[in-house]
Amino acid sequence: MRVHGSQPQDQWLSQETRKFPPSRNCNRSANGASLPISVLSRFCQRRWVVDPVRSTPELEARIDILRDDRRRYDHVTCLAQTLATQLAQVTLTQRTLGDAFADLSLKTPPLTTQFGLNGDTQRFLSKSGEVLVSAVNSFTSDMNTLVNKTIEDTMVNVQHYETARVEYDAYRCDLEELNLGARDSATLVKLEQAQRTFQNQREKYEKSRNDLSVKLQLLEENKVKVLHHHLVLFHGAVASYNTSNHQHLEASTKLPMPGTEPPSWLEES
Amino acid sequence: MRVHGSQPQDQWLSQETRKFPPSRNCNRSANGASLPISVLSRFCQRRWVVDPVRSTPELEARIDILRDDRRRYDHVTCLAQTLATQLAQVTLTQRTLGDAFADLSLKTPPLTTQFGLNGDTQRFLSKSGEVLVSAVNSFTSDMNTLVNKTIEDTMVNVQHYETARVEYDAYRCDLEELNLGARDSATLVKLEQAQRTFQNQREKYEKSRNDLSVKLQLLEENKVKVLHHHLVLFHGAVASYNTSNHQHLEASTKLPMPGTEPPSWLEES
Repeated sequence: MRVHGSQPQDQWLSQETRKFPPSRNCNRSANGASLPISVLSRFCQRRWVVDPVRSTPELEARIDILRDDRRRYDHVTCLAQTLATQLAQVTLTQRTLGDAFADLSLKTPPLTTQFGLNGDTQRFLSKSGEVLVSAVNSFTSDMNTLVNKTIEDTMVNVQHYETARVEYDAYRCDLEELNLGARDSATLVKLEQAQRTFQNQREKYEKSRNDLSVKLQLLEENKVKVLHHHLVLFHGAVASYNTSNHQHLEASTKLPMPGTEPPSWLEES
Repeated sequence: MRVHGSQPQDQWLSQETRKFPPSRNCNRSANGASLPISVLSRFCQRRWVVDPVRSTPELEARIDILRDDRRRYDHVTCLAQTLATQLAQVTLTQRTLGDAFADLSLKTPPLTTQFGLNGDTQRFLSKSGEVLVSAVNSFTSDMNTLVNKTIEDTMVNVQHYETARVEYDAYRCDLEELNLGARDSATLVKLEQAQRTFQNQREKYEKSRNDLSVKLQLLEENKVKVLHHHLVLFHGAVASYNTSNHQHLEASTKLPMPGTEPPSWLEES
């Protein structure tokens, strides 16, 4: 039996997207001399496509969802990172603007209150914003861990499962080929050997499928808990930022308001 | 009498900072053949420096303050412009992040509420931020008008005043020179002519000084009113933004809160 080395197989798996329907593997085998199965009957191709035993649509769907989730979480992480960077820039501008207003407050006696109020507000928003930036950075960091450690760890299992499935397809195809051919004492020995190897590969494949299924279930549960926690913290940080700013602004504008102040000496003249 | 053309004079005024103590003008005249007064006695230089009639420290101080104000207002305008640009970027990121959260809310049944709440918040902050950006842009535009139209208009008067002062210095220096020289019938005619020209120039100078003084007073009054108005609007926009966000967040979190929710099916298991 021709068994291809694991290195080209791994390369192939990493270069292509890692989802290979059995029919696709068969076609590759039919066209490429380097693949384990050199000749495939049309019957063989047809049987694999429709074989109900070998299709695992539920698991495939869960893998698809995981890949989609990972892409979406990664997108959210990038956006949160961008938001943190932009907010950090805003806090710097607010601080500089706050300082400029505060200087003008000292230099402009008839506008001390208005410049002072704006200076104080911008400085407060800047400090408050720094806390928010820190919280968004924490969210980004936690999401990065989820995407690049927790989910990635399960993706390794997905890769093992897919490799096992491709190999299982190959051995199965070889066995079908032998079954269809002429039988003599030599081919019978080969057939028995192919059946044992096929059986071992099927067990290996089923084990990797069960491992992956358990891992996916654990990840899904863990993911929901972890995301729930991060989302609560993220929303809490945004809410705190706005509440804090609102309270500060409300307290500061309890000073004599522009509309209720007596007219300035200029307006009186 | 040697009178230099107005063109080099104007060029000189625009190239140098526009504040020339009389002694400086005299020194230039002593060194430069193109200037109206070719030779100056040490006595002449000394008298101009100490001459109390010609110094206008109060007006000079007001011009200095105006220049300093213009520089500070320009700085504030630039910062507000930067802030508006940065806030606009934040609103875009918030909208995209809000959309990403909203999508995840639909795709993730056990986290529909948490993703939904965050999505809703970011989308609201984005819309709210757009209103703030618009208000900051209005502030920037109004400040630009103040700096580049209203104040600039007075700076033209400052320039006229300073040109008149430099010319007055020149004619005065010529007159001093003639007064110190030998007197015959020819120089007496020159002296009479120089005295008339000097008198005209003094009147021109005093008129420009009075015009400038009135203009500065009007500008100072107008500036305070205009700035007061813009500062109230700016602070009001910031306060509205924060109040609006705070109210929205408070209303949205009246939905079942994470802490008070019954444990999810995952936490129960």
